[in-house]
Amino acid sequence: MKSAEENVVIGVDLGGTTIKAGIVSAGGTILYQNKLPSNADKGPSAVIKQIGASVWEALEHTDRATVTGIGVGAPGVVDDDGVVKSPPNFVEWDEVPLKAELGKLFPGLAIGIENDANAAAIAESRFGAGIQYPNFLFVIWGTGVGGGIILNHKIYRGPTGGAGEIGHISIDYKGPQCNCGNIGCVEAYVGQRYLSQRTADRLKSHPESKILQLVDGDLSKIEPMYISQAAHDGDEVARGILIEAGELLGVALAAVMNVMDLRVSIIGGGISAAGDFVMSAIQDSVVRHVLKPLRKDIRVLSAQLGNNAGILGAAGLVL
Amino acid sequence: MKSAEENVVIGVDLGGTTIKAGIVSAGGTILYQNKLPSNADKGPSAVIKQIGASVWEALEHTDRATVTGIGVGAPGVVDDDGVVKSPPNFVEWDEVPLKAELGKLFPGLAIGIENDANAAAIAESRFGAGIQYPNFLFVIWGTGVGGGIILNHKIYRGPTGGAGEIGHISIDYKGPQCNCGNIGCVEAYVGQRYLSQRTADRLKSHPESKILQLVDGDLSKIEPMYISQAAHDGDEVARGILIEAGELLGVALAAVMNVMDLRVSIIGGGISAAGDFVMSAIQDSVVRHVLKPLRKDIRVLSAQLGNNAGILGAAGLVL
Repeated sequence: MKSAEENVVIGVDLGGTTIKAGIVSAGGTILYQNKLPSNADKGPSAVIKQIGASVWEALEHTDRATVTGIGVGAPGVVDDDGVVKSPPNFVEWDEVPLKAELGKLFPGLAIGIENDANAAAIAESRFGAGIQYPNFLFVIWGTGVGGGIILNHKIYRGPTGGAGEIGHISIDYKGPQCNCGNIGCVEAYVGQRYLSQRTADRLKSHPESKILQLVDGDLSKIEPMYISQAAHDGDEVARGILIEAGELLGVALAAVMNVMDLRVSIIGGGISAAGDFVMSAIQDSVVRHVLKPLRKDIRVLSAQLGNNAGILGAAGLVL
Repeated sequence: MKSAEENVVIGVDLGGTTIKAGIVSAGGTILYQNKLPSNADKGPSAVIKQIGASVWEALEHTDRATVTGIGVGAPGVVDDDGVVKSPPNFVEWDEVPLKAELGKLFPGLAIGIENDANAAAIAESRFGAGIQYPNFLFVIWGTGVGGGIILNHKIYRGPTGGAGEIGHISIDYKGPQCNCGNIGCVEAYVGQRYLSQRTADRLKSHPESKILQLVDGDLSKIEPMYISQAAHDGDEVARGILIEAGELLGVALAAVMNVMDLRVSIIGGGISAAGDFVMSAIQDSVVRHVLKPLRKDIRVLSAQLGNNAGILGAAGLVL
């Protein structure tokens, strides 16, 4: 008989381009991981086939008897029955019962499916920056702004699994229109497209900025990655842009923290890697914008798991 | 032996001016109610004495053996132990263990204490407009803007009992400063003081408005009650003001509904009584400002219990 310590699960991070599957120990160590194309452009059957292939490949790297379950973090809304709805960039994918499909492929294993931002929040809660915080708001700040809410160490999914959409909080009812149709969404200020545009505008009067070197002088190539890298290297234009963006993000986070009585926010995603000064900018803004009883306990922290959050959070669904 | 149907509880609505205590049946009927001054200006002992007096007076109007508990809705933050913290307008009141104090006065009875906005949300959930909705956002729109969140038919209190502060969501990060210190809070647009000021400004160019008659031509007397009454009677200036305010309130509600995956909002408080056109204005605004998957299910409804929500919600704590 095997001891509980030897049991592992498979965590699957399903993205629009690649699928990553990992063998994860109960303590949150990734013992092995692979990577396959997700074939999102070929329809649901092709994607499910690739998920199956990635899991089988991973299973070859462990004693199958020790594997107790498979967790999947997927884009889109995931309902309580593990149906994945309208993941962006997945063609012909309206509503797919991914949990049921994987149950057929892997009978006898526990299957868990969760939205990818929620899965990353679970990962930070179980294995990362959120271990000591029973309640926090997790934010992914990258192309867009997404998130997940951890209450009492568990994910708050909302009645239909759609909770955590902090990117579409309006911070100015007279502001710019967002792709979602709403006006002044925080994502329309700090999301990739808008941040790059603002940076391009500012570089016209700041030709000395390191960002220009990073994009070989081509303003159309500006991406948050470069802004983040330049800021990390001390570039003042890049730091200024990210501090402004952090302050605006803080306005939206403060709204959630007021309404849900939360004190802690953990920030992941590409832009958060720019440095502690971004976390400080967000924290200062949240403190200024929350109600007085919350102020002294506000903590804005960097996520710790980076690209591994997807696999680890998916694993957390069945651990 | 008595049947369960005969059991009743005492619901206490503690306000800054008056205390109301009612005998409430399991089905939510107020069988009797009284009213006493709360003596909030005389310190916690005086207030507790008045609560005791109101409960004893109510107990004289029923068979004491049928009374199973006492619930209290109180202003301020109420923690999990029934400690009431800093209720506005209650002097010398920092943190008072109201649950423990009432337990001493009424041994053998279940005691429940909850924030008053949360209690009103519970009332609408159990006995009012929210019966058929497991999840909704309750809003009190009166002097300020407060609220309570019902999830799966229960109140969401947050980690420290402070949840539901929807009045301090910023809808414009460059907007006017709110009393709370934040910038552009929705309360700074639609709360009593600001609404009255905006109305006074507008009446200068609209001397025909009925509001002017209601305040005898004295702009300093303008209160939401009069705006609401004039609007109810068809006054176009009043209707215009409340429709604008409803649209702004909708921006804040949409933020909460996006983040928490909610579809239903129930609006109570004095201003909500102006008429269905205000609910329509809020609803239209929420629909425009939430994410697409939520839009078709958005419902903004009037609260049904009016001034009885306090007693009924308090009763609901121990029913």
